[in-house]
Amino acid sequence: MTAVASAEIALRDFSADHRWLSINTATLRKQGDLADIVDACAKAEIRAISPWRDQVAAIGLDRAVRLVKDAGLDLSGYCRGGMFPADPAHLAQSRDDNRRAVDEAAALGARCLVLVVGGLPQFSRPGSEASKDIIKTRAMVEDGLGTLFDYAKTVGMPLAIEPLHPMYAADRACVNTIGQSLDLCDRLDPAPSGQLGLACDAYHVWWDPALMAGIARTGRARMLAYHVCDWLVPTRDLLNDRGMMGDGIIDLKALRGAVEATGYDGYCEVEIFSDSWWSKPMDEVLSTCIARHRTCV
Amino acid sequence: MTAVASAEIALRDFSADHRWLSINTATLRKQGDLADIVDACAKAEIRAISPWRDQVAAIGLDRAVRLVKDAGLDLSGYCRGGMFPADPAHLAQSRDDNRRAVDEAAALGARCLVLVVGGLPQFSRPGSEASKDIIKTRAMVEDGLGTLFDYAKTVGMPLAIEPLHPMYAADRACVNTIGQSLDLCDRLDPAPSGQLGLACDAYHVWWDPALMAGIARTGRARMLAYHVCDWLVPTRDLLNDRGMMGDGIIDLKALRGAVEATGYDGYCEVEIFSDSWWSKPMDEVLSTCIARHRTCV
Repeated sequence: MTAVASAEIALRDFSADHRWLSINTATLRKQGDLADIVDACAKAEIRAISPWRDQVAAIGLDRAVRLVKDAGLDLSGYCRGGMFPADPAHLAQSRDDNRRAVDEAAALGARCLVLVVGGLPQFSRPGSEASKDIIKTRAMVEDGLGTLFDYAKTVGMPLAIEPLHPMYAADRACVNTIGQSLDLCDRLDPAPSGQLGLACDAYHVWWDPALMAGIARTGRARMLAYHVCDWLVPTRDLLNDRGMMGDGIIDLKALRGAVEATGYDGYCEVEIFSDSWWSKPMDEVLSTCIARHRTCV
Repeated sequence: MTAVASAEIALRDFSADHRWLSINTATLRKQGDLADIVDACAKAEIRAISPWRDQVAAIGLDRAVRLVKDAGLDLSGYCRGGMFPADPAHLAQSRDDNRRAVDEAAALGARCLVLVVGGLPQFSRPGSEASKDIIKTRAMVEDGLGTLFDYAKTVGMPLAIEPLHPMYAADRACVNTIGQSLDLCDRLDPAPSGQLGLACDAYHVWWDPALMAGIARTGRARMLAYHVCDWLVPTRDLLNDRGMMGDGIIDLKALRGAVEATGYDGYCEVEIFSDSWWSKPMDEVLSTCIARHRTCV
């Protein structure tokens, strides 16, 4: 894997600086609010972040917009829209909530709105009638995504589908592979407009037998964001035991080689949900992200 | 999903009796040894079990063979061979261990040897040199499987590859989908001999976007075993929080419809790794399995 990737492409040089590093603010969500995180990232000379909606809401959208602009931060993405599946009584909520996410992403000047598409309706939009039908649920995703895409195009906000690891298929995202995501893109946006594509997260896709073919098929037009962390062995929790890059078993350099071979030259966004890293001081987490970005990604 | 499946096939009638029910003995591993489990299953009029190697070793192979024969039990499978990836220093161990598994399965009269193919070599065969290269690891699986298949054919013991959920890709099985398993089968056994196929476990495959196509492609010749339990939301542990059928979100009737549409008329094997169910009396677990097999599978 490494041999193939390195034969195809010389990786961008991360060793000297960290100008391609972005910090997903969920990585620091327990240590401070968005204002604290923006401040710490600016001090660490990090150029980009990807904030979450609840963190923006907690300090207010207008203040978040000002903070980000004053700090000169780029936004590699905005997390997150999606959670499309809903029963008829909850469809309007799903639609309106997603439109607001697009508007917020535009106000913040984000490069894309990241979409976690949702699982079965009872988990995506609580209160919805329970279902075990994942095929129908996937059709609900396509309907909701198509409706949102129509709106997002009018605003000019690219939508980035994030295929999630299959262990989240029931409750968070029933779109679980790059190939499945691209099939959706191809149906809704047949001539790639740059307005619909993928957020490719190493944690979610590393295991896929069709990984390298999927990344190549994604291409530059559909590769809207690239996220990294690591897969720990053992993994002690399905949600909050992701690893710092280098601490797990993902061949991150081979993966980045494949991603960059598409022509992708955007940010490498660190997103770590981890009870362990959430318990450490913000500055220690950031300095570790910077060091590992130079050596392990 | 249900509509499509039920239009294609009338499910075998599980409501009146449980003659197609098999109990994977891991489901009861904390409550007693294999002799206790055989005794309890015979009393509950269960016709088939699928024992694990460590449980057989604990009472001795000869005694296990006698117990199973005396109880008149059929063996829907024998768990498990595999863990093929190894560094050169551990390859002979991997090969010899797997041959012994085939011999034991034959001695017990099992319908197939179930294979959990293994993850990265350092986890499959501890002591092996560490690797992050899952592509090379998959090649090791194919090599090891091919060698074992040559041997198993001489004994007449069918090998059933069990694709595991992608959350086990690093340490237990880097073969994670039905399609990937069938590609292996097609390369090693191009004209399906009935000697190489799949153990299809609902827990591992339910999320797959290509699930129904994969089951249809498996066909009768490659469908060697069918396992059930359920996926709980939330799942609190990656290993030991599997659900009793009906307690989770898998559309088990639709899945069985698709499996039976291939012509499969073998056992429906209950395999539940669960700290919760392991803490209950053996008879209670068995009576629940019987009841749920009638109503939920």
